[in-house]
Amino acid sequence: MHDLVIRGAKVVTGTDVAVMDIGITDGRIATLGTGLDGADIVAADGLIAMPGGVDSHVHISQPSGPGIEMADDFASASAAAACGGNTTILPFCLPEDGVGLRDAVAHYLAKADGRCHVDFGVHLIVHRTDPTTLGQDLPALLEAGFTSFKVFMTYQGLALSDRQILEVMSVASQHKAMVMVHAENEDAIEFLRDEAERHGRTSPLHHATTRPVPVEREAVHRAITLAEIAGVPLTIVHVSNGAALDEIRRARERGARVFAETCPQYLTLTADDLDRSGFEGAKYVCSPPPRDAAEQAACWAGIERGDFDLYSSDHCPFRFVDRAGKDAPGARASFRNIPNGIPGIETRLPILFSEGVVKGRISLQRFAQLTATNHARLYGLAATKGSIRVGADADIVLWDPTLRRPIRQADLHHGADYTPWEGFDVTGWPVATFLRGCAIMRDGELTGRKPGGRHLSRALPDTLL
Amino acid sequence: MHDLVIRGAKVVTGTDVAVMDIGITDGRIATLGTGLDGADIVAADGLIAMPGGVDSHVHISQPSGPGIEMADDFASASAAAACGGNTTILPFCLPEDGVGLRDAVAHYLAKADGRCHVDFGVHLIVHRTDPTTLGQDLPALLEAGFTSFKVFMTYQGLALSDRQILEVMSVASQHKAMVMVHAENEDAIEFLRDEAERHGRTSPLHHATTRPVPVEREAVHRAITLAEIAGVPLTIVHVSNGAALDEIRRARERGARVFAETCPQYLTLTADDLDRSGFEGAKYVCSPPPRDAAEQAACWAGIERGDFDLYSSDHCPFRFVDRAGKDAPGARASFRNIPNGIPGIETRLPILFSEGVVKGRISLQRFAQLTATNHARLYGLAATKGSIRVGADADIVLWDPTLRRPIRQADLHHGADYTPWEGFDVTGWPVATFLRGCAIMRDGELTGRKPGGRHLSRALPDTLL
Amino acid sequence: MHDLVIRGAKVVTGTDVAVMDIGITDGRIATLGTGLDGADIVAADGLIAMPGGVDSHVHISQPSGPGIEMADDFASASAAAACGGNTTILPFCLPEDGVGLRDAVAHYLAKADGRCHVDFGVHLIVHRTDPTTLGQDLPALLEAGFTSFKVFMTYQGLALSDRQILEVMSVASQHKAMVMVHAENEDAIEFLRDEAERHGRTSPLHHATTRPVPVEREAVHRAITLAEIAGVPLTIVHVSNGAALDEIRRARERGARVFAETCPQYLTLTADDLDRSGFEGAKYVCSPPPRDAAEQAACWAGIERGDFDLYSSDHCPFRFVDRAGKDAPGARASFRNIPNGIPGIETRLPILFSEGVVKGRISLQRFAQLTATNHARLYGLAATKGSIRVGADADIVLWDPTLRRPIRQADLHHGADYTPWEGFDVTGWPVATFLRGCAIMRDGELTGRKPGGRHLSRALPDTLL
Amino acid sequence: MHDLVIRGAKVVTGTDVAVMDIGITDGRIATLGTGLDGADIVAADGLIAMPGGVDSHVHISQPSGPGIEMADDFASASAAAACGGNTTILPFCLPEDGVGLRDAVAHYLAKADGRCHVDFGVHLIVHRTDPTTLGQDLPALLEAGFTSFKVFMTYQGLALSDRQILEVMSVASQHKAMVMVHAENEDAIEFLRDEAERHGRTSPLHHATTRPVPVEREAVHRAITLAEIAGVPLTIVHVSNGAALDEIRRARERGARVFAETCPQYLTLTADDLDRSGFEGAKYVCSPPPRDAAEQAACWAGIERGDFDLYSSDHCPFRFVDRAGKDAPGARASFRNIPNGIPGIETRLPILFSEGVVKGRISLQRFAQLTATNHARLYGLAATKGSIRVGADADIVLWDPTLRRPIRQADLHHGADYTPWEGFDVTGWPVATFLRGCAIMRDGELTGRKPGGRHLSRALPDTLL
Repeated sequence: MHDLVIRGAKVVTGTDVAVMDIGITDGRIATLGTGLDGADIVAADGLIAMPGGVDSHVHISQPSGPGIEMADDFASASAAAACGGNTTILPFCLPEDGVGLRDAVAHYLAKADGRCHVDFGVHLIVHRTDPTTLGQDLPALLEAGFTSFKVFMTYQGLALSDRQILEVMSVASQHKAMVMVHAENEDAIEFLRDEAERHGRTSPLHHATTRPVPVEREAVHRAITLAEIAGVPLTIVHVSNGAALDEIRRARERGARVFAETCPQYLTLTADDLDRSGFEGAKYVCSPPPRDAAEQAACWAGIERGDFDLYSSDHCPFRFVDRAGKDAPGARASFRNIPNGIPGIETRLPILFSEGVVKGRISLQRFAQLTATNHARLYGLAATKGSIRVGADADIVLWDPTLRRPIRQADLHHGADYTPWEGFDVTGWPVATFLRGCAIMRDGELTGRKPGGRHLSRALPDTLL
Repeated sequence: MHDLVIRGAKVVTGTDVAVMDIGITDGRIATLGTGLDGADIVAADGLIAMPGGVDSHVHISQPSGPGIEMADDFASASAAAACGGNTTILPFCLPEDGVGLRDAVAHYLAKADGRCHVDFGVHLIVHRTDPTTLGQDLPALLEAGFTSFKVFMTYQGLALSDRQILEVMSVASQHKAMVMVHAENEDAIEFLRDEAERHGRTSPLHHATTRPVPVEREAVHRAITLAEIAGVPLTIVHVSNGAALDEIRRARERGARVFAETCPQYLTLTADDLDRSGFEGAKYVCSPPPRDAAEQAACWAGIERGDFDLYSSDHCPFRFVDRAGKDAPGARASFRNIPNGIPGIETRLPILFSEGVVKGRISLQRFAQLTATNHARLYGLAATKGSIRVGADADIVLWDPTLRRPIRQADLHHGADYTPWEGFDVTGWPVATFLRGCAIMRDGELTGRKPGGRHLSRALPDTLL
Repeated sequence: MHDLVIRGAKVVTGTDVAVMDIGITDGRIATLGTGLDGADIVAADGLIAMPGGVDSHVHISQPSGPGIEMADDFASASAAAACGGNTTILPFCLPEDGVGLRDAVAHYLAKADGRCHVDFGVHLIVHRTDPTTLGQDLPALLEAGFTSFKVFMTYQGLALSDRQILEVMSVASQHKAMVMVHAENEDAIEFLRDEAERHGRTSPLHHATTRPVPVEREAVHRAITLAEIAGVPLTIVHVSNGAALDEIRRARERGARVFAETCPQYLTLTADDLDRSGFEGAKYVCSPPPRDAAEQAACWAGIERGDFDLYSSDHCPFRFVDRAGKDAPGARASFRNIPNGIPGIETRLPILFSEGVVKGRISLQRFAQLTATNHARLYGLAATKGSIRVGADADIVLWDPTLRRPIRQADLHHGADYTPWEGFDVTGWPVATFLRGCAIMRDGELTGRKPGGRHLSRALPDTLL
Repeated sequence: MHDLVIRGAKVVTGTDVAVMDIGITDGRIATLGTGLDGADIVAADGLIAMPGGVDSHVHISQPSGPGIEMADDFASASAAAACGGNTTILPFCLPEDGVGLRDAVAHYLAKADGRCHVDFGVHLIVHRTDPTTLGQDLPALLEAGFTSFKVFMTYQGLALSDRQILEVMSVASQHKAMVMVHAENEDAIEFLRDEAERHGRTSPLHHATTRPVPVEREAVHRAITLAEIAGVPLTIVHVSNGAALDEIRRARERGARVFAETCPQYLTLTADDLDRSGFEGAKYVCSPPPRDAAEQAACWAGIERGDFDLYSSDHCPFRFVDRAGKDAPGARASFRNIPNGIPGIETRLPILFSEGVVKGRISLQRFAQLTATNHARLYGLAATKGSIRVGADADIVLWDPTLRRPIRQADLHHGADYTPWEGFDVTGWPVATFLRGCAIMRDGELTGRKPGGRHLSRALPDTLL
């Protein structure tokens, strides 16, 4: 007798899809079978059961510069995550000035405490390479289960030099941690921005024109080269175009172990969105920027061929009033002053389900790998997360593949005051989310439980996918 | 209460590996869980449970030219398969002269009847394109579950012209069948053979020198082009080198749906083996021939990167006495007269396990995909075969990952009188094979059951891996 | 005192351009210098002196199937050539049924005798591989200075099998001859044609849709592979697209010596031209067909990067009345019956001058190489043709780089009754052509001299460009 | 009546080679012809006349760090150049600390005044990007005929940031100057050096191991990307390997205008030379370092395919006693302290003649382009230098293609006390060098004339080769 049985769904188990029952006890998947008994039964005929989404690239309550507050804290971001079919999120810990990395992690975990609706791990942003950070903080945090480091090649104050990146990679190499990189060439961007401003090209569109594809392609090539020199696996996050993906493919050809992530914005938006009238373009400012139709197609081709390992949201929510409102006059003066990032934690899964699975580009199995399994494996969570498998946490999302409705800000739960996908038509929506066997979402709304998300200490990455 | 429970193994389920019990009833996997009860219990602690191997490329009792008999019939080949950890095989039906394809299939199935130790499907070799074959036999056989057609670009009597291949592909396209192709340029081979013989280069080594890499690369490019023109997915069987694989990768880049198979011979043997003294080289004559160390490395790189979808044996067994003995004088006169093909059905899985998994090149999950799951999906067997999954046939093989012993002809069960891998050191052997819940092999020997293999009517290929 | 001095032109000498005088005596360039004296003086200030065009790919008086006559004989074709700035042409000798290659050459030379306005060499079309042709005719003709063999992979009656191509290449390899190949996959074309006709797609446009890019790319890859196997240099004629060019580039990367030719039609026309109303599309039927804008750009990129060695006309003239008139009803029934080929001998040079040099894509030096020098070197004429150089034949064309006028059939001298470039705007026209020091064209018209073109016995190719 | 006639040589004129006379008057080539008269006659039957070598990459009297003096000043370097068949050299002006670029050029020209045996231009090293340098010095120097800027991505004190490189390129773009780049990633080198020293890997070999191929490949990709962003042509100097060359080729494929230079060290030496016993390895320390046999072959393939535009010496001479003698103890402590650079100005041409032309890899014409013509065109000297052409300076070198002797330090004229090619066997040596019609070298020795080399004010680059 299980605590709960989800009965009759088409269940995606790794490389398979079949109708079966899922028996859950003590928050774990105890049994997969047929005719299972449970204290509680969820009838799921006609639905698809998938591993709860693992969104390994989200920004929550992250320091964002003077006077700018991120639109989501753990409460709102995780509510949105749950309503979008996710059961695990991996935000980033960015230390504030003068705060050590270990202290920063402690503060960050405190922010989540008791407020998170889904389980979560924390990536470490490494933007300093002093001896304490590299020699003490990182090893200690690694021991404590923080097994992924993110470095930036852009953003003043965050960007590391190549030498610094090599030093971080060197620590990662000794401890088998995963290195993630935001790859854009800061110098080139600054040069182009200054030039654009000198010529009065200051509208949101020029956020895109000053971060052109070569700026990303170059940094991807460089980051991979540094990883080859340091001898570490590397994840290139938010790949936005075919040229950058080609660098990754070529590196794999010469034997490098490089993983690639893309995001919904690169599969569905273009730079034209940044040129929308009435300053609406400011709603689409993120880095790298959405590209053009050809690059969008190249990203889809990468999804179809299996070149991408990860599909994340890069959720980085700001309020449009903050980005472009009367209290944010800088934004009107120049795109440079618009905080970078768009919300997407709640819409990530439906967009790929509708555009990818329903349109016949990818299988359900590939969907599960791109949205959950590979995240769990690459970020050290595979023991309990990312798959519907006996012994794993009962993190399950039920999909109604026929449910059709557009994305609407009014239906979302994030803290942002808009969605870039307003009106975007979606077929296939998550209708229930279970975290460790507890229903936390039904029919697109939280079930009202007290936030029960736990922090996850993570194992080392599994780089043999 | 299950009929049988395999208890405590590390079970590979799609993209996961975890310890669990497998509950089997009526020949199917009824339950995956823990603490399962069964009328019969197999204690499998310390062992790995994998989907039974699906070897989708084997030749059995196939007409092989005047006076030459293949060394294996269904009984011996399937015994070897079972002892090597396989539960499904897919041999080819080649009609004899004057026999229609449907009749040939009926005769071929009759040969298997009651003699096969594992389940089996049958691929159709299409070497004629008369209206009956294309217009009647193929559609009828497709309806009956023969959903894959193999065409040859080499071998006199088998090779089709490009036009004929397009016509076969055209039928496949209409019916969504899979086309498989043996890609080597017959004209070039014949030219090189004639030239070699004129110059007295007649030893077995010259089997390799007259089928150089470009001969295969060219045919791969051509076959893919024909498939692009016809608009069909295509499987390139037995890819032997990096140049041919590059053609496949490039085709995928331009959007072609091409699948790639390689075989143990291309991962472990080289053309030097064809130059062994005492006419031993004749033991290694297969097409394409093994290449050199660089190409071998390129094939491994393809395995590691996930460029190969399938790993098969291309089991094609002849007796060395027939190939090179006193009754086979032609072989000594010229390599041309040595029947093409080597035995490998029983050693396929241990070789990849030892060289791939144990040596850290690939994960257990990738192993399962390469040896079973992808075969089942691409050849229409995924409903029941290829995975350890509730509802699937209980086709399971237990591996002892620590068992170490060399490959020895004395231990094998095939009809050939040698193995090309004599003395090859292997760590990790299958120790029990279950076909639909029945143990058919234990500790490397058949359990003695009456051959219970069934013919499998197959669905259409699942080309969205 | 020279016979003739061309004074004051900007002269293109290999990799240089400079103002100088050209002193000509006995039909040869005796002196390059300044202040040269001559019995006759041509003032050429403001003009550009280039080597007379060498058009190494033209079809004249070639057997073209029952009832179809080519629109040009040697008289008209060479008049057009001269008026278009050419001093040497290389047509093909195609033996009629039952005629040996040596006899065919003799007959063909007789057709030219006393009728050709420019010098000429003859390529041999090898469409039979009987022992007489390969063993006697080719060696004898090679000795006599016919040092290039063309083979076809398409056209019924002309196409050779891969085996036959290898045999021709084998003869070429022994004698260091150049092999040229028309690379399109005949089987695929026939398959697509039959299919198109079955579906009623019979208009001229379908000449293009039934010879799609992959049909050419495949054959290019195959032809190169055969050349690699035979160990011979190879010229791929009339490359029409980027995919085929990529095959050539990749082959060069692996060390193959492959030369590439393109033609004006692939730089300026597209398949849309075959879809012109009123059956005008029939005027653009040639093989390979013009492609689309993207492939056109890829061909230009190849010109700019130096990937193309040769730029020829593939002049193959038919009268529109024969192609599409009331006596050619077959053409209306199906594109299949439209003779393949378009006229272009007179417009080749102006098109590249205007689109290439004037538009800043290529230098004058590259123009000379693409239109004359490389032809002379690759086809064994460099001792006397292809450059403005002391000792070479005084084959010189003077260009007025500022002269602007559209191409008009009314101004042309070929035997065709139309030009595909009617109305095409050109800046830069040849204003005088000198053959061995004799002016044969002035201001776009023949000077009225008796045809003085000579047959050129050719040396072996110079494949180290 | 010419001042001088060189009679009967095989003359390389651009794309041609033919026997003719060269008539010289007032230091210029007045006439090319036959039977020319001259006040002075040089009989050159059996010899090859080529344009005098233009070595566009040499370092002379360049500040090299505290206590280190370059082994050559203008007198010795130009003597060596002349004896090695060169008539023009292009050294670099590097300002010392606190000296402005214009002043530095003036000082540098003063060093050459009356001491240089061959003509010379001066490239500008831009290692500062202050407003005076970018806004005043560079534009003024450009006006004065200094039309090429070199930037470094490595060497402390020289290396510019990406932003600075973009700023230099921006000036170059406005003025159509050529940008040259030394492409190696400084940060990665420093990281690897520190690591090597920590592990006691301090011998000369580790100069190579700490500057591995990826370090160069990365910087090449980056430099090209910056040039694409800035919209300027770019020359990558001293390309040492196939991976870096591939980056250049790929950039050309996407439309970038990038030129590539290689040097004798990458065609004939390997990193093994840095591992020679007795500290002899210090004689081979240059950057990038020589690679391995495979990369050497890749560089040769680039030469043969025409991927390289320039072949220079990168002459950068130090005395072995300074590099490794008792007054240079730092060198023994670590490879880091060995001055970077090897001598090669005198041996550049014979090495390529012997290894390239005599061994059949390239034609004489290609040799002339790689050693002279393309240098003149890309660096704004084509009006007078780089070709044997009427009107050009009579800068001519006569080669005896049959003369065979090894390279020996004892025979050389540079200031270094060794040659890396000691004992290297060469067939084909220059036997006379003429600068503007004056013989400055005969039979390997200076003729004793007073140094008459002039500074060359240069035009803008001709980037349409």
